[in-house]
Amino acid sequence: MSDVLDLTCELIRRRSVTPEDAGCQDLIAARLERAGFRIERLRFGEVDNLWVTHGAKDAPTLAFLGHTDVVPSGPEDAWATPPFEPTIRDGVLYGRGAADMKGSVAAMVVALEAFVAAHPDHDGRVALLLTSDEEGDAIDGVRKVADAFKARDERIDWCVVGEPSAKAQLGDLIRVGRRGSLSATLTVRGVQGHVAYPQQADNPIHRFAPALAELVAEHWDDGNDDFPPTSLQVSNIHAGTGANNVIPGTLEALFNFRYSTASTAEQLRARAEAILDRHALDWHIHWHDSGRPFLSPPGGRLRETVVTVCREHVGLDPEQSTGGGTSDGRFVAPLGVEVVELGPANATIHKVDECVAVADLERLPGLYGAIAVSLL
Amino acid sequence: MSDVLDLTCELIRRRSVTPEDAGCQDLIAARLERAGFRIERLRFGEVDNLWVTHGAKDAPTLAFLGHTDVVPSGPEDAWATPPFEPTIRDGVLYGRGAADMKGSVAAMVVALEAFVAAHPDHDGRVALLLTSDEEGDAIDGVRKVADAFKARDERIDWCVVGEPSAKAQLGDLIRVGRRGSLSATLTVRGVQGHVAYPQQADNPIHRFAPALAELVAEHWDDGNDDFPPTSLQVSNIHAGTGANNVIPGTLEALFNFRYSTASTAEQLRARAEAILDRHALDWHIHWHDSGRPFLSPPGGRLRETVVTVCREHVGLDPEQSTGGGTSDGRFVAPLGVEVVELGPANATIHKVDECVAVADLERLPGLYGAIAVSLL
Repeated sequence: MSDVLDLTCELIRRRSVTPEDAGCQDLIAARLERAGFRIERLRFGEVDNLWVTHGAKDAPTLAFLGHTDVVPSGPEDAWATPPFEPTIRDGVLYGRGAADMKGSVAAMVVALEAFVAAHPDHDGRVALLLTSDEEGDAIDGVRKVADAFKARDERIDWCVVGEPSAKAQLGDLIRVGRRGSLSATLTVRGVQGHVAYPQQADNPIHRFAPALAELVAEHWDDGNDDFPPTSLQVSNIHAGTGANNVIPGTLEALFNFRYSTASTAEQLRARAEAILDRHALDWHIHWHDSGRPFLSPPGGRLRETVVTVCREHVGLDPEQSTGGGTSDGRFVAPLGVEVVELGPANATIHKVDECVAVADLERLPGLYGAIAVSLL
Repeated sequence: MSDVLDLTCELIRRRSVTPEDAGCQDLIAARLERAGFRIERLRFGEVDNLWVTHGAKDAPTLAFLGHTDVVPSGPEDAWATPPFEPTIRDGVLYGRGAADMKGSVAAMVVALEAFVAAHPDHDGRVALLLTSDEEGDAIDGVRKVADAFKARDERIDWCVVGEPSAKAQLGDLIRVGRRGSLSATLTVRGVQGHVAYPQQADNPIHRFAPALAELVAEHWDDGNDDFPPTSLQVSNIHAGTGANNVIPGTLEALFNFRYSTASTAEQLRARAEAILDRHALDWHIHWHDSGRPFLSPPGGRLRETVVTVCREHVGLDPEQSTGGGTSDGRFVAPLGVEVVELGPANATIHKVDECVAVADLERLPGLYGAIAVSLL
C-alpha cells in the first residue's frame, strides 16, 4: 500500500464529523514534526486548526490548505461498505472524506515530507493549514485563522486548496477563483385581516409580488472573462397561517447572490434595496456577506504553475474555472494571497459511497510536490 | 326577566361548542312542540339539525334559520365573567353566543310561539331550521339539510337568517345577499438544486413571480349595484427548505376569490388559469367552490318586508349590504329561496366578552314576528 493511500485510510477511520477533528491533526502534526516542521495549534471555540511550516517566517510562502472534518455519513446501512471503514474495490477507495478531502490532506502531508527531505535548504517557506470547521458554520475555522494571521502579518504568497475540483479525472479542472456569496433575509410587513375584508388589511404577498417579479427578472451584470454573470436565487418564501380566510401580516423571503467581480456586494445591496423602495413596501432586510469573490488572475504565478504541473503530470490541459460554491479560499484570498484549488473528482462528495480513484490519489502528492519545487 | 332574555341565558349556559348542540335543540323542540309545531330531527354525522314547522307542507313557507353551536371561548380567565355563565351588566348581556347567535335563536322561538298563538289559522307555513355546525366545517349542517330538502321538494319561499348583521344597533344594517367564495390550492413545480448551480435547477419561485404579480394586479370586475367588485387574496405562499443555498423544488400558494354576481366561478377559474398558462409554469390547481353568491333582489318581497319592519320597529332605514363573509344562507339560496339576514350587532362576535344589548335582544322577537305577520 502506498504511503498516501495508507494515510488516507488512517484519516477516514477517524470519525471527524464537523466540528470534530477526532485526532486527525495530531496524527499529521506528529508526522510533520518528525520531518522537521514547526507546529502551531490554533484552537477557536470548539474547532481545532493546525499551522505547520518549514522555512524562514518572512520568506515567500506556499501554503497548502485543507480540512480534516467531513459531512455526516447519513444512514450507514445505505453505504455499500461502512463509511468510516476505508475499503478498496476495483481501484477505488470508498469512505466518508475519501474525496472531500482526506485524500488531498494525506497527499499534502506526503508531498511536504518528500519536499523537505529532497530540499532541506529550499528557498522560501512551505506550510500546511488545516481546519476542522469547513463543512459546518465555518466561523471558528479558517475565517478566524485568517483574522489572526492578518493581525500578526503572517506571510502567505500562494495557497493551494485541496478541495475536490476535478470533474471526471484529476487535473481536468482547477478553480482559479470563486464567486462571492451575499445572502439576504427580507421581511415585508402588512396588516393581518380577514379575506372577506381586504380593505381593512394590507396583504404583504400582494405588496411584494411586483417587487419579487422585478428582482428575479433583473439582469445584474454580464460577468466578465473570468466569471459568469451574477445570479440571484430566491431560496425561500413564506407567508400565511395555513387558513385560507386570513390575510397574513408578514412575509419572509430569503435570497442569495452568487456574484462575479463585475459587481460589488455594495452595488448589489443598493440595487436590490432600490427595487424594494420603488414598490412602496414596509420592508426590513438583514444582509449576510458570506464571501467576497476572489480570482487568481491569468498569468498569476501560482495559476500558471498549477496548469503546467497538470499538463506535465497527468497530460491534461485543465479547465480554469471560477464556478461552483464557496471554499475556505474566500478567507485566505483577502490577505493578498493567490489561491488555486486542485483536488480529485467531486462527483461523489457529500453522498453515500463517497470515493476517490486510487490512481488519482497516488498521483496527487507528485502534483503538490511539483508545485512546491516550481515556486520555491 | 323577559322571555327572550331568559331563553337566551338558558342557551348560553349550554356549552354547545361546534359541533356540540349540548341540548339546545331539545329545549327548543320541547317548547315549540307544546306550541303546536311539528318537530323533525335531521342528524348527519355528529351534527344535530332541527326542522320545526307550523302550517300546511305545500303552503308558502317563511323559514327562520339559525345555529345553536358557538365558537370556543378561548382562555376563560380572559373574560370579565365566565363565558358560559350569562351575566347582565349595564344593560348588556355577556356570554359566548350572546350575539352569534343564541340571542337571535331565542328571539325566533319566542316570535314563533307568539305568532301561532295570535294567528293559529295563519296562511302559509312558518318554520325554524337550526344546525349545530355553522361555525365548523359546515358540512353536516345546513349543507346536508339543503340536499335533503331538495331531494324531497321541501318548500321554502323566504328565509330570515339570524346572523348578527348590525353594525352598532339592531336594524342599522341587513344582509340582502352574500358574495361567493372560491378557493384554490396552487402547486408550481420546479427542479430542486444548489443556488450555486441555477442552470441545473428550475426555481418555482422565479417561475411563479410574474404570474403572481399579474394575478394580484388583475381587475376581475367592477361589481354591480348590489355587490362590490370581486376581490382575490393570496392567503398563503410557501416554498423553500429553510436553507439559503437550496433552490426549492415546489411552491404552494392558497388564494381565495370573494366574488360578485358580475363574475361566475367558472369565469374566474378560467381567467386565473389563463394567467398561469401565459407564464409557462408547470402548475396544478385544486379548486374548492365554497359558496356561490346569492342576492335577494331589490323589490323582493322579503327584502322589502324586512326594510319596512326595521323602519317601523326601530326607526332606522337599514343599509342593505352584501358585504362580509359567508353564512348558511349560501346553502338555502340555491333552492330558489329569497334570503335576508337580520340580527344584532356583530362587533364582539368570536371575541372575549361577546355580548348583546338587552334592548336590542328584547326588540328582536317583535321584528321577526312582524315579518311573519306581513308575509303570511
